[in-house]
Amino acid sequence: MWDDLIPIVEAGLDRYLTCAETCPRRLEEAMRYSVEAGGKRLRPVLVLMACEACGGAIEDAVPASVAIEMIHTYSLIHDDLPAMDDDDLRRGRPTNHRQFDEATAILAGDGLLTLAFEVIARNIQPAEVAISCVADLASAAGVEGMVGGQMADLEAEGRGLRAEGQEISASATSTLGPQLSALDQLEEIHLRKTGRLLRSSLTMGARVARAEPATVELLDHFGKCVGLAFQIADDLLDVTGDAARMGKGLRKDADHGKLTYPGLLGIDESRRRAESLIDEARCSIAALGDRGHRLDAVARFILERDH
Amino acid sequence: MWDDLIPIVEAGLDRYLTCAETCPRRLEEAMRYSVEAGGKRLRPVLVLMACEACGGAIEDAVPASVAIEMIHTYSLIHDDLPAMDDDDLRRGRPTNHRQFDEATAILAGDGLLTLAFEVIARNIQPAEVAISCVADLASAAGVEGMVGGQMADLEAEGRGLRAEGQEISASATSTLGPQLSALDQLEEIHLRKTGRLLRSSLTMGARVARAEPATVELLDHFGKCVGLAFQIADDLLDVTGDAARMGKGLRKDADHGKLTYPGLLGIDESRRRAESLIDEARCSIAALGDRGHRLDAVARFILERDH
Repeated sequence: MWDDLIPIVEAGLDRYLTCAETCPRRLEEAMRYSVEAGGKRLRPVLVLMACEACGGAIEDAVPASVAIEMIHTYSLIHDDLPAMDDDDLRRGRPTNHRQFDEATAILAGDGLLTLAFEVIARNIQPAEVAISCVADLASAAGVEGMVGGQMADLEAEGRGLRAEGQEISASATSTLGPQLSALDQLEEIHLRKTGRLLRSSLTMGARVARAEPATVELLDHFGKCVGLAFQIADDLLDVTGDAARMGKGLRKDADHGKLTYPGLLGIDESRRRAESLIDEARCSIAALGDRGHRLDAVARFILERDH
Repeated sequence: MWDDLIPIVEAGLDRYLTCAETCPRRLEEAMRYSVEAGGKRLRPVLVLMACEACGGAIEDAVPASVAIEMIHTYSLIHDDLPAMDDDDLRRGRPTNHRQFDEATAILAGDGLLTLAFEVIARNIQPAEVAISCVADLASAAGVEGMVGGQMADLEAEGRGLRAEGQEISASATSTLGPQLSALDQLEEIHLRKTGRLLRSSLTMGARVARAEPATVELLDHFGKCVGLAFQIADDLLDVTGDAARMGKGLRKDADHGKLTYPGLLGIDESRRRAESLIDEARCSIAALGDRGHRLDAVARFILERDH
């Protein structure tokens, strides 16, 4: 479905990860290690597809697609750190800090985050489009988006509350509330932790194609629905999936006492919720017609994937 | 000398650090804790002065000055982490991870780094100027600048070499070489670790004022000289300074076995080197005439400061 787009993304990543002599070799190695670990490349592929769906040239969207994959990868490196989720494996290989060391992993993450903005600034034209991509990506990745979502997630798990003398925050308190509140909270965390970044894939692609604001909005809504459905599917795979395919220990979320959709709603209701979100996503891009057929296929794929 | 500029910087920081409801309260607290710990505000003040020296309006440079202080602060938070320099005190107060916890400190750093680019993208006009500031700041802060410098610094200290199965990198090897090579290496690390960011203060200020490329170059050179002189002065203060004034344990660098200018060149020769760099800095902005008088005063101040 997007086999032809993957090589474009990989070539872009390789190109923009080729650092000058002044970058310490070990740092470049650590950044490449995690970026080249692969994964589905969902976010960068969505950037290219959104650009195509809005009538733009796919090549013009490569810098934005590379930037979002760099940001996604940095977030995985930092999330895996001992002070955060403390994971040893990611995509079947040792996590960055296990392969290198903690200091290198922190810096590799910082380096990727910073490089993402540089890639956009130096390679997207005209300046108005580049700056709107920087704004989209920064707010999606920042304290009101991904970083804030990770913080809320840690607080929900009660980890952020261990330090002495700190009050329990409002968002953490609500995990102690009734089920509805827990579901709202779960959705809010996902909307921020993974949803905002995924939405910015779509808006950046649309902006590179110089789409009208109304079209950017439609794609943003598509991204919101697909992002939530993707998370529900991920939770379902954690319960029902196969360890070898997933490349990580299964039932990790449940073992950590994390909130999950199947944990709150049961498997069947979670599946129904994902299906209805995908329907909503597909409706929101119907107006794009044939040009949107690949985005439509991605939406359907979310429900069918097994890893 | 810059007493009138500090309140402008502080007001800007407060304004752009006021996050929306969706930012977890603890995260905003942690970011504010380190930003509001103060410090000299050297970098943001230099942004405003460079803008003024190029005939621009100081108010127009506030977003860029806030952005650079956010990046500087994030780097301090991450550098202090147990896996990095493992510091308990910063500016006389507990470091961010000591006051909060490690996960929060990592996220507060990530949040500040990301917010810096958002502040520029949403508040600097026109787009050409904003995007040139993003490019300046990202390359100064990234793997070829500050992040790369920190990595090289860790490698020079031999910490980065502890992980199993990793080769000793070229830059680390050179610390084992003769004195000249160590001095070259020290200078290279500082040029990247602190120099590039300081230089971007000056180039961003100039860009906001729509200065000619040749003028941006002059200010860049001013920043390079002042940055190195500042680092030498810092090393000298570590040897000769007063613990209470510095707000941190003295001789920490020497105790850590870090390379320093006084350690390599002796106190007198280090002082001479700083003086000659300041002369060079002052010459490079002579062409700006009276408008550059504050930058000139800052250059002289570097040699006279006692904390």
